[in-house]
Amino acid sequence: MGFLRGGLVLCILLLLCSFERSFGSGKTRHLKWDVEYMFWSPDCKESVVMGINGQFPGPTIRAKAGDTISVLLTNKLHTEGVVIHWHGIRQVGTPWADGTASISQCAINPGETFDYRFVVDKPGTYFYHGHFGMQRSAGLYGSLIVDVADGDQREPFHYDGEFNMLLSDWWHQSVHHQEVGLSSKPFRWIGEPQTVLINGRGQFNCSLAAHFSNTTSTNQCNLRGNEQCAPQILRVLPNKTYRLRIASTTALASLNLAVGGHKMVVVEADGNYVQPFQVEDIDIYPGQSYSVLIRTNQEASKNYWISIGVRGRRPQTPQALTLLNYAPTSTSKIPLSPPPVTPAWNDYGHSKSFSNKILALMGSQKPPINYDRRIILLNTQNLIDGFIKWSINNISLHLPSTPYLGSIKYSLKTAFDNKSPPENFASDYDIMKPPVNPNTTIGNGVYMLPLNTTVDVILQNANALLTNVSEIHPWHLHGHDFWVLGYGEGKFTKEDEKKFNLKNPPLRNTAVIFPHGWTALRFVTDNPGVWAFHCHIEPHLHMGMGVVFAEGVQHVNGIPNQALACGLTGNRFMKTTQN
Amino acid sequence: MGFLRGGLVLCILLLLCSFERSFGSGKTRHLKWDVEYMFWSPDCKESVVMGINGQFPGPTIRAKAGDTISVLLTNKLHTEGVVIHWHGIRQVGTPWADGTASISQCAINPGETFDYRFVVDKPGTYFYHGHFGMQRSAGLYGSLIVDVADGDQREPFHYDGEFNMLLSDWWHQSVHHQEVGLSSKPFRWIGEPQTVLINGRGQFNCSLAAHFSNTTSTNQCNLRGNEQCAPQILRVLPNKTYRLRIASTTALASLNLAVGGHKMVVVEADGNYVQPFQVEDIDIYPGQSYSVLIRTNQEASKNYWISIGVRGRRPQTPQALTLLNYAPTSTSKIPLSPPPVTPAWNDYGHSKSFSNKILALMGSQKPPINYDRRIILLNTQNLIDGFIKWSINNISLHLPSTPYLGSIKYSLKTAFDNKSPPENFASDYDIMKPPVNPNTTIGNGVYMLPLNTTVDVILQNANALLTNVSEIHPWHLHGHDFWVLGYGEGKFTKEDEKKFNLKNPPLRNTAVIFPHGWTALRFVTDNPGVWAFHCHIEPHLHMGMGVVFAEGVQHVNGIPNQALACGLTGNRFMKTTQN
Repeated sequence: MGFLRGGLVLCILLLLCSFERSFGSGKTRHLKWDVEYMFWSPDCKESVVMGINGQFPGPTIRAKAGDTISVLLTNKLHTEGVVIHWHGIRQVGTPWADGTASISQCAINPGETFDYRFVVDKPGTYFYHGHFGMQRSAGLYGSLIVDVADGDQREPFHYDGEFNMLLSDWWHQSVHHQEVGLSSKPFRWIGEPQTVLINGRGQFNCSLAAHFSNTTSTNQCNLRGNEQCAPQILRVLPNKTYRLRIASTTALASLNLAVGGHKMVVVEADGNYVQPFQVEDIDIYPGQSYSVLIRTNQEASKNYWISIGVRGRRPQTPQALTLLNYAPTSTSKIPLSPPPVTPAWNDYGHSKSFSNKILALMGSQKPPINYDRRIILLNTQNLIDGFIKWSINNISLHLPSTPYLGSIKYSLKTAFDNKSPPENFASDYDIMKPPVNPNTTIGNGVYMLPLNTTVDVILQNANALLTNVSEIHPWHLHGHDFWVLGYGEGKFTKEDEKKFNLKNPPLRNTAVIFPHGWTALRFVTDNPGVWAFHCHIEPHLHMGMGVVFAEGVQHVNGIPNQALACGLTGNRFMKTTQN
Repeated sequence: MGFLRGGLVLCILLLLCSFERSFGSGKTRHLKWDVEYMFWSPDCKESVVMGINGQFPGPTIRAKAGDTISVLLTNKLHTEGVVIHWHGIRQVGTPWADGTASISQCAINPGETFDYRFVVDKPGTYFYHGHFGMQRSAGLYGSLIVDVADGDQREPFHYDGEFNMLLSDWWHQSVHHQEVGLSSKPFRWIGEPQTVLINGRGQFNCSLAAHFSNTTSTNQCNLRGNEQCAPQILRVLPNKTYRLRIASTTALASLNLAVGGHKMVVVEADGNYVQPFQVEDIDIYPGQSYSVLIRTNQEASKNYWISIGVRGRRPQTPQALTLLNYAPTSTSKIPLSPPPVTPAWNDYGHSKSFSNKILALMGSQKPPINYDRRIILLNTQNLIDGFIKWSINNISLHLPSTPYLGSIKYSLKTAFDNKSPPENFASDYDIMKPPVNPNTTIGNGVYMLPLNTTVDVILQNANALLTNVSEIHPWHLHGHDFWVLGYGEGKFTKEDEKKFNLKNPPLRNTAVIFPHGWTALRFVTDNPGVWAFHCHIEPHLHMGMGVVFAEGVQHVNGIPNQALACGLTGNRFMKTTQN
């Protein structure tokens, strides 16, 4: 008995492949989007999700490198503002289009339309998502795929077909409710997600692989295939090479993906080519993307599981599953073996081994040998007035109501804390113990970075409030890729610098820090704007886990009025004739 | 066994009476309010409510006539804008402080503060509430009580003490969820409220009067008295006169209130004195307020029920209950008889009889004998593109993103429909049948009213989409009181004018139309501004049941910039130096 009645599978396959038609290199692609809440059943249980043009996830944008994207985004929410961040797109020359509320623009008011217009300058696997409150968790996300430009040299690897897998996690409790809990005293944690979704589809009350379960409590899914929660099956031909574009916009879950019976060759990370390497499974942290190649060289009469499990936190969420199906084998044929087992959640050795394999493709741009400035950022969990917060060098970020891009450009000094936040932490701080930092405060100061300097950031992890607990945090930088110079254990010391990889460190936009460890990043301040740098775990950012970099803002010109029409910039520049 | 263990009752009593201290006539009362979501248990079941300064309902404002109120309102919501409307306050000279999003001001953005500064010029029982999306339903409301000014003559009736009862209805489904359902195709109705609240307190899983219930399914409440859902008991002394200030901010429920064993004398309606009349029970529609006097002339050793039931819709909500307690009788003593029975929900004869008893106190201001303009507004329920809407003369109101006050003041003609909405409907329209109006549209046109004219509004009710259904609608006018000239059955005709009460019609701000009937109102356009006139049932307004009156807007000066910093006014008046 198949878990998916055939017939409609072809439709799903066509859907998966029917990307927006390409208009050639350097074209402007005009999109009109309405954001609104709607009823949807991402995991077979009905919820309210934030959709775009009636779709969840939002429409996939497909473009070629050099194209200009114009998204006329209309806010159809009733009382909420909205913004969309184009994750991985550097927004060179358009920092106001980065889609970060309180940083790059005023949130778009209900009923209003904002034109997000920006160039996608680099091929790769990207995505977009809400960046106001926790609207990403509410379902405001979609894929953004950039192909090589016409006439450009081709990708440095061959493939015959491709599939796009945008991964996310889903809660049944509304995001509004989650936000209240996180901001309450006593604190209420959101808990682990109910479901992991692949392209917005998961199964909560049943499993596609219940046959293999030891317990009888899990029901086998009985889906027709046209349900909102029915899996999209990856239908392939034998003896071909397929590119899987895998991106994670999860709010919390670090994931691990494996394809039963198939090895994967990693070729891209966060829109940058990497030296190809073969693995059995890959780790994907929130905010990261990969392309992997699989060769369909297995028995064509069978189907194979694609399984995605949670890592880095004690999992309470079932694996997400779908099938790799060799045409013309029936999609209703259940694989003979159970889905690949996700490595133990706390097997950090496995995680580190994977991370360390990621190196830049030969010939990639190398980092400057020397740095001009080094900022060391201690990550701690703190109690502030009884509220649980995350802090960086003892400051928990609370964004101001006036976006920085305008307030810095126009020197509105009361818009945020003018004192520069610290660039290091006390040398005697014990990162192995629960935090002893009584001076932790709420703040919104900015790291002011001169243009064209090389900045090192050392992300230093530490123990959380509970003894012997240190969490994974995937840090994402806006407006830039950074080189990942290395990962290390314990407290970073000057000695560790010697181990930096300056030869072929990978460029990416999101890198993880492991428990009680550090991660070293380097980037060049070549992009005027104000850029968020933050943990990409949505509730952690909500709890203050981020910093703000301002970079040559005096060189920014052409901020749209609409991006400034709130807070102090709104007040400063409103000139009516009445008074 | 008492439903309320004593002891804490005194605290509740003190709380009930500890209104803000008065600073004398003509003073400015400065208040600082933070609006935020919080966990709360209004009916013993935990929900997320919109609170002010950690309180639900929001703080009671107590002032004297002639005082200026300044509320520095800070929006502490994460992604939602907010406004507060001061229901019943006419905002003479301060139309931008009326607190209606899209009409009088731009919604206050998250993190921003707006100064609501206005004069309370008339003693009475008022309240305030959110007026953006359905934030009123989310719990954003509180009482506003204006006493006679020092030195002014006293109220035209005597009382020894007073109690304030702000009534509301409560749903367990979040307002965000409700909004999505109302805006969906197929339509999802919000259903009847789970609980009716008195000063934000009700009981969902139990009844204070279960002893008297015929069924065993209702549990007797076992409350200590300090719960958020414990009733506030009205503690009185024998042989005194008490004023009950009763206001309804319900989203849906029309209510009826009775005090066991006590008659009530109605003395005030919507902030206007009325000719005192005695009743056994009173009807209160959403948006209305009354003061009634009760004489504590009953047996002092007993307690008496105060019961509030639903009328006008088939009720599925239990009566709200509290006690009238004669000191020093124990509050834990259960009354000997069951709570007063609410009149049948569809006994409109009872309702009309009550409404017709309400007449202006002798000596009150009389309406002009003649009108300059008469606007007849047909109320219909319609299907527009498959969405269920309420329409007025075939137009369902969808508010624009640029508030009218600014767009009209500055003649921004693209901000809203410039075509004036119709002032009448087809003479052959059959109000007794489901609507036949295929030209119904969504719109946002404005009735432009010259200053200092007398306007009659005839509200004409009609049949809803279902055969033989016509609902009650309480219409509320901003910026004004109106005279209620009369209520009638069927379709209004010129002949009906002869029955108008021009001698002593009551002044009020909210009047009901009965099923298949009409209500005639008259007001003078003496207040420059843009004023909403709408059904005060929250989901009905959300579904388009309102119109907009603009009145001498060219005379409005001093609109705060912040009230204009959105939409087209934001765009028009933003002048930066960069371009």
